[in-house]
Amino acid sequence: MEMQSVYETHFPFWKDLCDADRQLMVENTTRVFFEREQSVHDNTRCTGLFIVKSGRLRIYMLSEEGKEITLYRLMPGDVCMLSASCVLSAITFDVYVDAEEPSECYQINPQAFHSLSERIPAVKIFALETAVTRFSDVMWIMQQIVFMSMDKRLAIFLLDELSTTGGDTVTMTHEQIARHLGTAREVVSRILKIMAADGVLEVARKGIRITDKKKLQQIAH
Amino acid sequence: MEMQSVYETHFPFWKDLCDADRQLMVENTTRVFFEREQSVHDNTRCTGLFIVKSGRLRIYMLSEEGKEITLYRLMPGDVCMLSASCVLSAITFDVYVDAEEPSECYQINPQAFHSLSERIPAVKIFALETAVTRFSDVMWIMQQIVFMSMDKRLAIFLLDELSTTGGDTVTMTHEQIARHLGTAREVVSRILKIMAADGVLEVARKGIRITDKKKLQQIAH
Repeated sequence: MEMQSVYETHFPFWKDLCDADRQLMVENTTRVFFEREQSVHDNTRCTGLFIVKSGRLRIYMLSEEGKEITLYRLMPGDVCMLSASCVLSAITFDVYVDAEEPSECYQINPQAFHSLSERIPAVKIFALETAVTRFSDVMWIMQQIVFMSMDKRLAIFLLDELSTTGGDTVTMTHEQIARHLGTAREVVSRILKIMAADGVLEVARKGIRITDKKKLQQIAH
Repeated sequence: MEMQSVYETHFPFWKDLCDADRQLMVENTTRVFFEREQSVHDNTRCTGLFIVKSGRLRIYMLSEEGKEITLYRLMPGDVCMLSASCVLSAITFDVYVDAEEPSECYQINPQAFHSLSERIPAVKIFALETAVTRFSDVMWIMQQIVFMSMDKRLAIFLLDELSTTGGDTVTMTHEQIARHLGTAREVVSRILKIMAADGVLEVARKGIRITDKKKLQQIAH
């Protein structure tokens, strides 16, 4: 019963599925738990779709040398489609997915979903639309990387973090922030030092406390 | 008659359209010509779909300060979907499109195509799949920007140019190459000078002649 309402909420095509197809979906869904920083998906296999129930997933690119850049995050209610790239033949790239917090998800078998999407246009349209929405997210990151200075990108990142977690403190190490932004720890530390000198924030052991949000917004815009 | 065969070749959904919808497509298609460097699409309006008949289109991002980066190119037979972002509500970003060479295209009115895609799932699937294919192209550029050194990116760019145009010479100014790569002219000139000193290429007035393609490939891989 619980799954029925999850599907109804997340899948616009659910109302059009026949009973047999609904049954197929239910039988191919499992509930999974991930620890903080646990890998959810890598490029070794087609893991499947995820519906985030609680927690937070991070989708990122990883270079052969281990360099990372965060593309976007998924929150409760979001559907992770790029971890099931085998469902969509037009997707020819690999992303990585980690849990940023202890996360509970529904995992849907990619082969089952693929067979459904080949038979039912509304399912395919949903899968493609979800992917195209992420394309928009990635273009925003791309724009930041190519056109914005690192201090502006860092300001945007800190403001995004605050709006996600609430409060006035970002509890991340400089190393973690650097990995999100695809840069070196030293670069992040240097900019944070300048921002601290300007009275925008305080760098403490437990994280970065924003003391002048208006000023931070000015740097971001 | 000519249009019929163009549609048949480019639109997998064509065979499933009824006569009235085929008529709608034909009535909403115009043949357009663009000069070299003429703007095909900017962010001020939803221009429509283009099918490239001859020539070459360049799709790029543009910053407020006029900085550019090339995302991908479209060759004869390709369909330009991102110039009709109003067809796909999931696309929330703007790109720019120029003709890199004198180009002949078929332009399809976006409102007509939109109405078709809302009624006929196969049309919507085509539009979304075309967009997702470009997502893959953009991810490849993203990977280069974030993870690769500029000399590697320049080597990949020169090799791509050679394979597109044939011959051993890339007839572009350093300024043009810099705009493709989203960097400064000085950076391109400096790397080309080093490559010339290494015997990889010769920089002449009429362009960049590759003298050691193997060496250039080594830099790219």
